[in-house]
Amino acid sequence: MRFFSDNAAAVHPAVFKAMAEADRLDTAYDGDAWSKRLDAAFSALFEREVTALWVTTGTAANCLALAGLVPPHGGVLCHREAHIQVDEAGAPEFFTGGAKLLLVDGPGAKLTPQALEEARGRIRPDVHQVQADALSITNATEYGLVYSAAETAALGAWAKSHGLGFHLDGARFANAVASTGASVADLTWRAGVDALSFGFVKNGGLSAEALILFDPALADGIRRRRKRSGHLLSKGRYLAAQLLAMVEDDVWLNNARAANAAARRLAEAAGERLVYPVEANEVFLKVSAAEAAALRAQGFDFYDWGVGEARLVTSWDQDMAAVETLARAIEGL
Amino acid sequence: MRFFSDNAAAVHPAVFKAMAEADRLDTAYDGDAWSKRLDAAFSALFEREVTALWVTTGTAANCLALAGLVPPHGGVLCHREAHIQVDEAGAPEFFTGGAKLLLVDGPGAKLTPQALEEARGRIRPDVHQVQADALSITNATEYGLVYSAAETAALGAWAKSHGLGFHLDGARFANAVASTGASVADLTWRAGVDALSFGFVKNGGLSAEALILFDPALADGIRRRRKRSGHLLSKGRYLAAQLLAMVEDDVWLNNARAANAAARRLAEAAGERLVYPVEANEVFLKVSAAEAAALRAQGFDFYDWGVGEARLVTSWDQDMAAVETLARAIEGL
Amino acid sequence: MRFFSDNAAAVHPAVFKAMAEADRLDTAYDGDAWSKRLDAAFSALFEREVTALWVTTGTAANCLALAGLVPPHGGVLCHREAHIQVDEAGAPEFFTGGAKLLLVDGPGAKLTPQALEEARGRIRPDVHQVQADALSITNATEYGLVYSAAETAALGAWAKSHGLGFHLDGARFANAVASTGASVADLTWRAGVDALSFGFVKNGGLSAEALILFDPALADGIRRRRKRSGHLLSKGRYLAAQLLAMVEDDVWLNNARAANAAARRLAEAAGERLVYPVEANEVFLKVSAAEAAALRAQGFDFYDWGVGEARLVTSWDQDMAAVETLARAIEGL
Amino acid sequence: MRFFSDNAAAVHPAVFKAMAEADRLDTAYDGDAWSKRLDAAFSALFEREVTALWVTTGTAANCLALAGLVPPHGGVLCHREAHIQVDEAGAPEFFTGGAKLLLVDGPGAKLTPQALEEARGRIRPDVHQVQADALSITNATEYGLVYSAAETAALGAWAKSHGLGFHLDGARFANAVASTGASVADLTWRAGVDALSFGFVKNGGLSAEALILFDPALADGIRRRRKRSGHLLSKGRYLAAQLLAMVEDDVWLNNARAANAAARRLAEAAGERLVYPVEANEVFLKVSAAEAAALRAQGFDFYDWGVGEARLVTSWDQDMAAVETLARAIEGL
Repeated sequence: MRFFSDNAAAVHPAVFKAMAEADRLDTAYDGDAWSKRLDAAFSALFEREVTALWVTTGTAANCLALAGLVPPHGGVLCHREAHIQVDEAGAPEFFTGGAKLLLVDGPGAKLTPQALEEARGRIRPDVHQVQADALSITNATEYGLVYSAAETAALGAWAKSHGLGFHLDGARFANAVASTGASVADLTWRAGVDALSFGFVKNGGLSAEALILFDPALADGIRRRRKRSGHLLSKGRYLAAQLLAMVEDDVWLNNARAANAAARRLAEAAGERLVYPVEANEVFLKVSAAEAAALRAQGFDFYDWGVGEARLVTSWDQDMAAVETLARAIEGL
Repeated sequence: MRFFSDNAAAVHPAVFKAMAEADRLDTAYDGDAWSKRLDAAFSALFEREVTALWVTTGTAANCLALAGLVPPHGGVLCHREAHIQVDEAGAPEFFTGGAKLLLVDGPGAKLTPQALEEARGRIRPDVHQVQADALSITNATEYGLVYSAAETAALGAWAKSHGLGFHLDGARFANAVASTGASVADLTWRAGVDALSFGFVKNGGLSAEALILFDPALADGIRRRRKRSGHLLSKGRYLAAQLLAMVEDDVWLNNARAANAAARRLAEAAGERLVYPVEANEVFLKVSAAEAAALRAQGFDFYDWGVGEARLVTSWDQDMAAVETLARAIEGL
Repeated sequence: MRFFSDNAAAVHPAVFKAMAEADRLDTAYDGDAWSKRLDAAFSALFEREVTALWVTTGTAANCLALAGLVPPHGGVLCHREAHIQVDEAGAPEFFTGGAKLLLVDGPGAKLTPQALEEARGRIRPDVHQVQADALSITNATEYGLVYSAAETAALGAWAKSHGLGFHLDGARFANAVASTGASVADLTWRAGVDALSFGFVKNGGLSAEALILFDPALADGIRRRRKRSGHLLSKGRYLAAQLLAMVEDDVWLNNARAANAAARRLAEAAGERLVYPVEANEVFLKVSAAEAAALRAQGFDFYDWGVGEARLVTSWDQDMAAVETLARAIEGL
Repeated sequence: MRFFSDNAAAVHPAVFKAMAEADRLDTAYDGDAWSKRLDAAFSALFEREVTALWVTTGTAANCLALAGLVPPHGGVLCHREAHIQVDEAGAPEFFTGGAKLLLVDGPGAKLTPQALEEARGRIRPDVHQVQADALSITNATEYGLVYSAAETAALGAWAKSHGLGFHLDGARFANAVASTGASVADLTWRAGVDALSFGFVKNGGLSAEALILFDPALADGIRRRRKRSGHLLSKGRYLAAQLLAMVEDDVWLNNARAANAAARRLAEAAGERLVYPVEANEVFLKVSAAEAAALRAQGFDFYDWGVGEARLVTSWDQDMAAVETLARAIEGL
């Protein structure tokens, strides 16, 4: 019974089915019939014209977006524990040509306009210091917290007031949407977001993430950078088909709801043990080493997260019986 | 009846089957059971220990290899019409941090030690000019010519005598193997190759290419660069499974043989019309505009290639009846 | 009697004098009184508002300009023998973050709109090929030819018609101005030039070149890149003072006239031996090995330039007696 | 009476004299007689063979060294307030091709093996996180503290035990040498330092810093990167002459002693007001806004340094009468 990571989960059947249907001769790269349907499919979802590009990883989506938003001599305001800072092996620096991540603090890896204002205020505007050119947030955050539409809009307003681009790392954006009940439009472009890394792989996809561009001026450069970074697959139709399958029947949303529900059940069981409120599909738990061992002895797999904490992640296909068993095991600690 | 590109072909059934079998919970990235079998599977094929990494594109394979072989201030000797120079949107410059491609001429996009010696001789060894640090060749070449094991070894010996790394772009390496009948070992590391981009996607794969490293010193850095460039997919098992399916029952070789056979049939029909000898799965044909139109009127699709030339590419799944029809149509021009 | 390179010449006395006058306590970097006078001094010279930045090398001036004009995924059209391609060790690739130089041919390293149109026409506008974003020319060229104001304007019009930035490498711009008699304005911004590397070091300066920006939108980014590339010296006043000394009393123009005059005398002597017309301060001469040896035996130093050619460069401080002696020696061959 | 920055000071007469003596025809770049003497002059000073390269800024020296020590996907451990992190506009990221600075804490911008061990321990060794490849320290630190030879050796031993390169930013290395009384050898290569940025400009130089390489394997690559970054001046003899003048008669050491003595006098006067012990030529003082205003009213110029603090920097040519006046003014607060 594994609660390691939503990356480890299997693929939703609709995704495999769509790939099989795409298994026929068509034009290479993104000239095929499936890739050409992406803009329309995502424009419908987002209630406005968008450019939707398939890429194979969240890292590629994030860093292509950042490369479009900041010059090589620029900077990106983000949380000190943001995935782009901690877990992407310097990909932002690579894709942007050496831009600097300007780190900001906040509980649960969540940023506020106040924290950003303070951080930006510490940067001298002279040529000796790297200036902020963009803001990047993660929704849901690395600790499973969620930005509401209003919170996102407040950040977007702050970013615009300083002339900054606004990127949203949505590796678990589906979970944030399911959690808030807000529309994808309210959580993104209506809140000022310029580019969204819309994650599907953790949520039942196989190898396709979507990079959604709300600012049309970004599209040409990012398309070129996608090729230049080796991310323009020659048989792109198999990626496009995955995204279409996930989007067209709300598979993405239903999957996220299932994962969130599993996490909520664990959260109820955890009670005072929770390190953060559970707002998406991640549960951070205070457990002693002995308690962690006890859970593992009952067959539950999960990561330790620093001393005295454990991270449980639920997936779209989580077996609810296993969740219930784990919930009771936690209650019984 | 399309003879556009082997990129456009469908996926071999064994590849889909293997992906379906990999569709279960496992560790993310390349910690899964399938990814862990890659080194052994390719080591068996290559008759020595190798490091085998999945990536999703030939551009990524090529440029990760080059980044491992040359410093940012270095240079790569390659043919003036090499894919890395002409069709990768500056990816070599991006991945290497700005290294320079040092262009060499030769008929059919094929290089010789003589041509390389002459090109290298034109570079002053001072700090004002970019020096050559590696050699990159393509086998089969961009014009469908093949380097024999002996030709490759001669290039490898030349490269080593000047302290250069040696990269082989093998987007159509399978076709070269099928064509020469040489072992993969003789065409690579026994000939001095340090890193091979082993193409599978044009040859029946879906989204997995293999980067084969013969120099173990390259592995750690290239693994890190794979992540840093956004090419470490979280559900890597679906890529590894593709490669294993292609390699384990000689699917790759049988597919290449089929494509080559189709091309040979067209070559026989073309006779004096051939621009280059047909040694792999590409046929470059001298045809007038009227003749090209006549072929298209009969339902054949292909690219014009400059004025008075056409490129026909055969695939692993080429319908031999269509090939025969096309062959006769060419004969009938 | 050395005719190696104008880089080897001594420094004009006015330059040293100005540096000595600047030898007092002042604000660091470019906040000092001398640096602050640069914009005005060069604006007067160019008959419009310009931004003038000191840098220490032509390579830095050229590549900072290019970095401002093209994105990392972009390209720069330039001559195949341009200094940025041949003699800057990959600096354009480094400063731009991996942009590609797109090489164009033309006699004497000189470009024409026709040659550029043809070169640009060979680039497919798709994402697989690097596109042209800027044009860079050298005046005087690497072979001592000069672009007239009209020729420059024709190139500028062509560049603008394709949306390209326009950079002028003016390592020997002073010699071009002296040669054409045109105003610096006519040879630059009135002809569509966006950024000029205005060389002083070959022309009597010590360590200061000027980067002149006609497009105000370039200034902020290039100022930041100057610092980021280590080119913002802390005692900038000693650089600014050099430039002011060179500009304020037409020292730059008089020096260039002297060097050009010396070259003209050699050109008269050379007659049919000239490889190119002598329009600035470089003389390319057809000489046999025996003739070259004979000249060297008489005490003249110069570079061989390929087989059967020699390059003679005259400087601002060339001893006219030595020039006359050399002229006669050439006539006497 | 300015105590702003040692960057603002004038140039030592010996430096100007040496430049005047170098004002004659010689080979360009670093082929001249002065540049060729550098290795020997610095080898004598350092009691072993070294490679000594002139560059024009500390930023260039620092970042060329780092580019030689870490791969683009690597990391540099340094203090959170190190100049390379705070005041070089992202130059380390630019020169290294996007390496990451890995920030470590410690009072007075000083690092210890313990702090480094702890910081390194927080980096997972997997491919998702940037690994440490080098250590960079500043001596004297950004707050005027000094590493002794023993402290440096302890850091060097720690670095070597983890396979890290070791860079020393010595913008005020002369002051550290003067302060410790240790030999330059003991403070560098005997302590494990691989590359030293040896600052001269703050200490009486005009535009020449020295990059000293103790690891001969670094030399070729860094020479190429110096050219590639636009830092190979064509009239290099004027830089080399500056360094020779500073080194050959201990001008550098006498200048540093003078600056340190001035700072010590201020430190005595400051007593309890000192934020850090004064070990070199910087004095950080606790002063109220009113007190700062009072000092300024008496004609003293200096920077505020955060709230309630001021920074005073003394120079090689500081007028000791002014120092005495300031010392008494501080005592009188």
